[in-house]
Amino acid sequence: MKIYDTQRAPNPRRVRIFLAEKGIEMTYVPMNLQGGDNLSDDFVRKNPWSKVPLLELEDGTCIGETQAICRYFEVLKPEPALLGKSALEQAEIEMWQRRVELGFSTKVELCFQHGTDFFADRMTPVTPVAEWARLDVLTFLDKLEAEFDGKVYVAGEAFSMADITLFCSLEFARVVSIRLGDNHPNLKAWYERVKIRPSINA
Amino acid sequence: MKIYDTQRAPNPRRVRIFLAEKGIEMTYVPMNLQGGDNLSDDFVRKNPWSKVPLLELEDGTCIGETQAICRYFEVLKPEPALLGKSALEQAEIEMWQRRVELGFSTKVELCFQHGTDFFADRMTPVTPVAEWARLDVLTFLDKLEAEFDGKVYVAGEAFSMADITLFCSLEFARVVSIRLGDNHPNLKAWYERVKIRPSINA
Repeated sequence: MKIYDTQRAPNPRRVRIFLAEKGIEMTYVPMNLQGGDNLSDDFVRKNPWSKVPLLELEDGTCIGETQAICRYFEVLKPEPALLGKSALEQAEIEMWQRRVELGFSTKVELCFQHGTDFFADRMTPVTPVAEWARLDVLTFLDKLEAEFDGKVYVAGEAFSMADITLFCSLEFARVVSIRLGDNHPNLKAWYERVKIRPSINA
Repeated sequence: MKIYDTQRAPNPRRVRIFLAEKGIEMTYVPMNLQGGDNLSDDFVRKNPWSKVPLLELEDGTCIGETQAICRYFEVLKPEPALLGKSALEQAEIEMWQRRVELGFSTKVELCFQHGTDFFADRMTPVTPVAEWARLDVLTFLDKLEAEFDGKVYVAGEAFSMADITLFCSLEFARVVSIRLGDNHPNLKAWYERVKIRPSINA
């Protein structure tokens, strides 16, 4: 079993932190995205969508998409729960994980894809998309800050996948100059709580 | 227990079909989004993110986000499974559900939000966002068509949440003039298979 990933991208990092929290050992195969490793015939046969992270099982079955890979391991090794246990916990964590991912993570990725020339060899950046996404991201952070009052973690009392998603996207957002500000004291306190977890260095 | 929703939007429809497949009775509270029902003080107290569908439990707890609401009911009533049973099934369905949602559904929504004036009272449409999203959507459909060869349902042999997501977004895409074409025979055959399920009229 192995995972194809890349060191600096937020989605592969989410999987690494998730597995470290669960104490699952993994073999990682490093990919150079800018060099086009993910566009090679061999990799496209494994994942026609050309994305990392990608989990390859012993029998050759491949699972793409960060949340799907994490779900696979949550079912196989439920403790510690990072996607919740009861129906209500699972729903609340999924709700927050999605709010963060759709409202923040995917928009930060658009800022990167359309606001830099990192992938200029394979796509045409559309500057207004990056500008729109940036405004959305900043609005999201202010809204999340307001809702964070009194909360310990994103989905409530327990550390969960929702925290992993927010943390990785927030650190990645630095490359497009998006950072927490003085108007985000709740989120800054949360960030300090999460940053000291050993899994963060996975 | 009740769900706040609206008749024509794709996400509320996904929940209705999901519950119909499981045979779960529900009370639906219709909301007029264009009239601003979701921006009322009362609703924002229930869901600060102002979105439907929203599930309100007997004790007043509210769960937003389509996937989170469906997860709640999948845990409470696992049969028939729409999110998979084994670790691998769950991972494969989540992988496909996400590919469809991130690659298609969210982009169709952007075509609608930024390519029409439906929400012009509360947001400024950015035309290049709609144009970029439309190109992405068309590329996605061609890619999905190529990968559909030999498949019965989106995630494989079993009807799942991934089919519900694709079906609802595809029907909604008509409002922005995006339809399957003659170059999508696999997807058209799949569409006919799904359309006849009784749950589709929920």
